[in-house]
Amino acid sequence: MSNINKILIANRGEIALRVMRTAREMGIQTVAIFSEADRNSPHVRFADEAVCVGPPPSNQSYLLGDKIIQICKDLNVDAIHPGYGFLSENAAFCQKVADAGIIFIGPSPESMDLMGDKLTSKHTVAKYNIPMVPGTPDAVTDRVIAKQKSKEIGYPVLIKASAGGGGKGMRVVENEEEFDEQMDRAVSEAITSFGNGAVFIEKYITAPKHIEIQVLGDKHGNVIHLFERECSVQRRHQKVVEEAPSAVLTPEIREAMGQCAVMVAKACNYYGAGTVEFIVDENLNFYFLEMNTRLQVEHPVTEQITGVDLVKEMIWIAEGKPLSIKQEDLKINGHSIEIRVCAEDPRNNFLPDVGTLHTYVRPQGNGVRVDDGFEQGMAIPIFYDPMIAKLITYGKDRNEAIDKMIRAIDEFKISGIETTLQFCKFVLKHEAFLSGKFDTRFIGLYYTPEKLDEPFDADEEIIAGVLASHLLNHKKMVNSSASSVEVPIQQSQWKTKRLEYR
Amino acid sequence: MSNINKILIANRGEIALRVMRTAREMGIQTVAIFSEADRNSPHVRFADEAVCVGPPPSNQSYLLGDKIIQICKDLNVDAIHPGYGFLSENAAFCQKVADAGIIFIGPSPESMDLMGDKLTSKHTVAKYNIPMVPGTPDAVTDRVIAKQKSKEIGYPVLIKASAGGGGKGMRVVENEEEFDEQMDRAVSEAITSFGNGAVFIEKYITAPKHIEIQVLGDKHGNVIHLFERECSVQRRHQKVVEEAPSAVLTPEIREAMGQCAVMVAKACNYYGAGTVEFIVDENLNFYFLEMNTRLQVEHPVTEQITGVDLVKEMIWIAEGKPLSIKQEDLKINGHSIEIRVCAEDPRNNFLPDVGTLHTYVRPQGNGVRVDDGFEQGMAIPIFYDPMIAKLITYGKDRNEAIDKMIRAIDEFKISGIETTLQFCKFVLKHEAFLSGKFDTRFIGLYYTPEKLDEPFDADEEIIAGVLASHLLNHKKMVNSSASSVEVPIQQSQWKTKRLEYR
Repeated sequence: MSNINKILIANRGEIALRVMRTAREMGIQTVAIFSEADRNSPHVRFADEAVCVGPPPSNQSYLLGDKIIQICKDLNVDAIHPGYGFLSENAAFCQKVADAGIIFIGPSPESMDLMGDKLTSKHTVAKYNIPMVPGTPDAVTDRVIAKQKSKEIGYPVLIKASAGGGGKGMRVVENEEEFDEQMDRAVSEAITSFGNGAVFIEKYITAPKHIEIQVLGDKHGNVIHLFERECSVQRRHQKVVEEAPSAVLTPEIREAMGQCAVMVAKACNYYGAGTVEFIVDENLNFYFLEMNTRLQVEHPVTEQITGVDLVKEMIWIAEGKPLSIKQEDLKINGHSIEIRVCAEDPRNNFLPDVGTLHTYVRPQGNGVRVDDGFEQGMAIPIFYDPMIAKLITYGKDRNEAIDKMIRAIDEFKISGIETTLQFCKFVLKHEAFLSGKFDTRFIGLYYTPEKLDEPFDADEEIIAGVLASHLLNHKKMVNSSASSVEVPIQQSQWKTKRLEYR
Repeated sequence: MSNINKILIANRGEIALRVMRTAREMGIQTVAIFSEADRNSPHVRFADEAVCVGPPPSNQSYLLGDKIIQICKDLNVDAIHPGYGFLSENAAFCQKVADAGIIFIGPSPESMDLMGDKLTSKHTVAKYNIPMVPGTPDAVTDRVIAKQKSKEIGYPVLIKASAGGGGKGMRVVENEEEFDEQMDRAVSEAITSFGNGAVFIEKYITAPKHIEIQVLGDKHGNVIHLFERECSVQRRHQKVVEEAPSAVLTPEIREAMGQCAVMVAKACNYYGAGTVEFIVDENLNFYFLEMNTRLQVEHPVTEQITGVDLVKEMIWIAEGKPLSIKQEDLKINGHSIEIRVCAEDPRNNFLPDVGTLHTYVRPQGNGVRVDDGFEQGMAIPIFYDPMIAKLITYGKDRNEAIDKMIRAIDEFKISGIETTLQFCKFVLKHEAFLSGKFDTRFIGLYYTPEKLDEPFDADEEIIAGVLASHLLNHKKMVNSSASSVEVPIQQSQWKTKRLEYR
């Protein structure tokens, strides 16, 4: 057991603040690092000590592992929390941290290595009877063998280049008749793109849901799961809306997936917080996809429904303490949803936007949590992830969480940059989302920019106020003299009609 | 059953916003009223419609019941939510609202009347075998009878003037020997102060805890309780810190108090949200004190531990719907604490302070809720209650809720007015509070202004930054050139030391 008295957070923005808040609650000192672009960021001002590590982009600052380790030595830092992204899944960095006698708040470099590669991770868990999407274990080049395998797997199947990525050399085959043609195309595309014609064949899941299980393991071999997060609403493999629990899992499947996730974690001697991702088909068959060896962006929805502070658990685990919770004590309470508010223009192909947050008024109230790293008046730098805030709601059931989210989106007033707020509202109000019956095709199937509500517009608020004033002056007020109506002041949150009674 | 489509909130500040947020989540239109002093308040801008009802003070605006009813008629308002204070416990107003065909979101005028008077309410519940502080049911003037009664009740006893209030004509008698003298003094004080020498004798509770039970009743005779709130930390009968659940109640006593509260509510055919207050002695004997026939300031801690939105339930009840929850489905999850942040100077006998909120940065993050009605740049008017915000934290247990509260207090940056933030922090960190073993004497026993931490000071932040810069320039940095240290920018949240590595 090693006490952690000072943590360096090797990250920026909302996740740096998220980790620091829990550290403060635990009486742990915090050290922020920042790039020259983040000089005035809240995460810098929140920390007890803050160190500028260099200019943007990240490879000259946030990714400088050796420099970060040196800072830890200089400032007597006991442990590093990597957040997500940046160095969080870099096993070599993780090893260097350990070699320097500093605690890495996350898994061992070995677990990270094992799970870092999709193929290695599948081989690692294979002996534990973890369900995987049926397919060829190794790459094939022979068309006859490939066709035979496809028949065994059952159509539709997916042919994908073993060296591939980004959809290149990927073909869906609906039935045996079209197999030869598609196989030839896939192989030739693979050769052209990657110089390698080898392909994998696997079952094609027509309507896949992305559901993941949160796990926590300690350094004494104990692993528990904290139920699922439904993350099927994605745009280009980026999650848009996440929720817990899933609206469609049965208690039995939840339990089976949870046990499966625990086995995956045990298969790589995992400790810390991790996430086991599954694909779930329309019949609720689930298949292991990969394991993420870090805290996820969407971890707050799990915190909301379980009452467990995941960062606190991570720190305790890193100190060598046994898990503070037993599996049988965990229960799902209520429902939580998270949306990612990004500086992107949903009317313009989600082009990242930069600028100054002229208006930035967060929603508040019962069941609303905002995790962010910005404030009114700040400029959004161009160098980093476009996510500016996570808006999380909690209700006693799914409908209440949705109602709170729509209210909170309306209450979140941002001007100066384009955001995905209205895009998320479109998702939340869509009948497919409301029914819970949706999958990763959601955005592609349903979204077009015309379906968006107008975003908040500070100028328009004032115009609306003037118009309302004219309209209302014509309205007859019973038993009272309707009189002057004020123009809403600049930061008006709603298009309020104002009346004066005298 | 009557659908409510538009609600007028006959209140201001945080509670007006609190109610409007839930109304929005339910798809209900909102009408705000405001005095000329509250023209720029967030509650005005949040509403769909807002009506100025007159100048401050309240008796020329927020208390003008007839005018408010007229506004409801003019704007086709279906229901009035009174919040707390102002007209919320005015049975005559409640009756007028009903007579005007408008729904009052609260109990019937009859229940309000019955519970509005301490004596009447005790008579009403007497037949239900509700425990009450032992004492004389009627006023006595005869010293011999009074002494006999005192002996039956058991010392110490309290003699209090039947016409009294504010501690006048109130005497604690420790034993029979001092009875005559104290009785004479009490009677003579009562005659001098109130022209009436009649007194009540009751058991004196040496170390009283104030614990209250939240109840909800519908219009079909169903009543449930939502456990207790511990509100013993009080200053001059004003609650300072509230929490749920109590740190000392056993499950058996909680259950007994809950059943008792349900009986009290049934005794007056109660519907809506109400609170039954009890005095609890050091042996956990509990005694009925009174019933509050409205939403309490401290209702959020109950919402946090039960997941029930009390305002939503109030609206449903007002619509005539049966309760949405059954007693057996309610469970306590985690622990919640609320502090009242008031514009008062705890170093100067809690003198109310007015001024402009030059800095007003709310705490955020996991388990933190701020219910308020102000924002940075606003002036605090002198006319109303000094409470500017309620800071509520939630943790999986009491210690976590306390840790979060102390972190949140440190993160709450207010300048321009004096507040009770540091005073509340003193309470939260006191060993008596931490142990859970405290009672209503807490502030009197333990508080002196010297025990306070320094409050946030925007100017001092800058000075501290300059000093830190000098100190750090002298600090040797290993393997890196320690160099310029920045002065924290104006809104710095913490006294961060800044270092640059090159």
